[in-house]
Amino acid sequence: MTTTSIARTAAEAAELRDDPLRFGVGARVTVSIMADDYAAVILGALAATDTSGLVVDTGDVSTYLGGAEGDLLRAITQLTASVAAGGHHASVTVHLSRGCPGEAVCELSGGAGARGVETLRGERTGRWTAAEWALYPLADAPGADHMSDIHAAIDFARGNGTFRGSEHFVTRLEGDVGDVLATAFAGWTLVGRSVQHVTSHLTLSLNSPSHAGVQR
Amino acid sequence: MTTTSIARTAAEAAELRDDPLRFGVGARVTVSIMADDYAAVILGALAATDTSGLVVDTGDVSTYLGGAEGDLLRAITQLTASVAAGGHHASVTVHLSRGCPGEAVCELSGGAGARGVETLRGERTGRWTAAEWALYPLADAPGADHMSDIHAAIDFARGNGTFRGSEHFVTRLEGDVGDVLATAFAGWTLVGRSVQHVTSHLTLSLNSPSHAGVQR
Repeated sequence: MTTTSIARTAAEAAELRDDPLRFGVGARVTVSIMADDYAAVILGALAATDTSGLVVDTGDVSTYLGGAEGDLLRAITQLTASVAAGGHHASVTVHLSRGCPGEAVCELSGGAGARGVETLRGERTGRWTAAEWALYPLADAPGADHMSDIHAAIDFARGNGTFRGSEHFVTRLEGDVGDVLATAFAGWTLVGRSVQHVTSHLTLSLNSPSHAGVQR
Repeated sequence: MTTTSIARTAAEAAELRDDPLRFGVGARVTVSIMADDYAAVILGALAATDTSGLVVDTGDVSTYLGGAEGDLLRAITQLTASVAAGGHHASVTVHLSRGCPGEAVCELSGGAGARGVETLRGERTGRWTAAEWALYPLADAPGADHMSDIHAAIDFARGNGTFRGSEHFVTRLEGDVGDVLATAFAGWTLVGRSVQHVTSHLTLSLNSPSHAGVQR
């Protein structure tokens, strides 16, 4: 929930930033299928998901995925697209975190610095979603200025056509599942260029009856 | 997503803090029922929920509830308990926010200050849940020290018996639906004593097949 600062050598800090698991790069994903046979649908979707490169720990509330940003985006896109392809109404909540492998108190000191990675464009899936997105730069460092990166994230969302506007506490995104997930990942990693600890929460709605008349 | 500071008079700031809607106190809630008749279950649960005092705006991804903390806790507890009482496996995601009524850029300047409210104990429901909880103090103010409030929040969770430990990125809570929600609200408002903009995300799992053998 918060970050404390401990001085590190530059070499130690660089080593931490280069190791996704030690830097705490990961996601918690909750898939909810609005159908009696939800368990079979989830198992089928998981079987269609390439989790190579990732640590996977399935729990009763969510599934933890740990590893590099590109592997996370590929796996969550495949999982979500596979759920959407089943045709059932479903929700997928995605909680992204980087820069703080601890829980109540961050185990990774502020001294690790920010981890810069390439901005990923994502893969088109042919499946449509409406989503609500929140992005949190958790900077305790005095003078941290992430506004230019926030604006870069919004520019990315406008650029790939997923930005639909602002609602209470969230940004609304619509479009291909792969583009919407890529937008959330881009915001998360773009702000991560200047802020060590960044989290993001995305809720995707799939195959909703209220989407029947939506202009795609 | 972030907060900018504009000076206000003390009177203007106090007026903002006293008005839950202008201070941006609210929640977005997504209820997912793992059953073919999910729509009927959700409508029944909503009918059993007292939303008095709240602004309600139902969307395709989530339902926005705006208003004072006590009204929010009562309504979300009733809604979740009613879903649990139906016996279906379900997930409820709750996104709480206070101190930032805007979206990409906070419309309420940092000058409003922190809003102090009574810590609520919640209502017992007789329904059990396992949940994952994240709490975000979004303080841009240099020198903001919220560690004592974070520890007060953890003490509250230990005190009402809902604290189960830390996992990647989240705190695990278990217990009565009313106690688990009260824990998330207590953390949110306790940290809100020192930080204007505080958000919290809670995912609750209800009636999961994997809870069958759990010691309640």
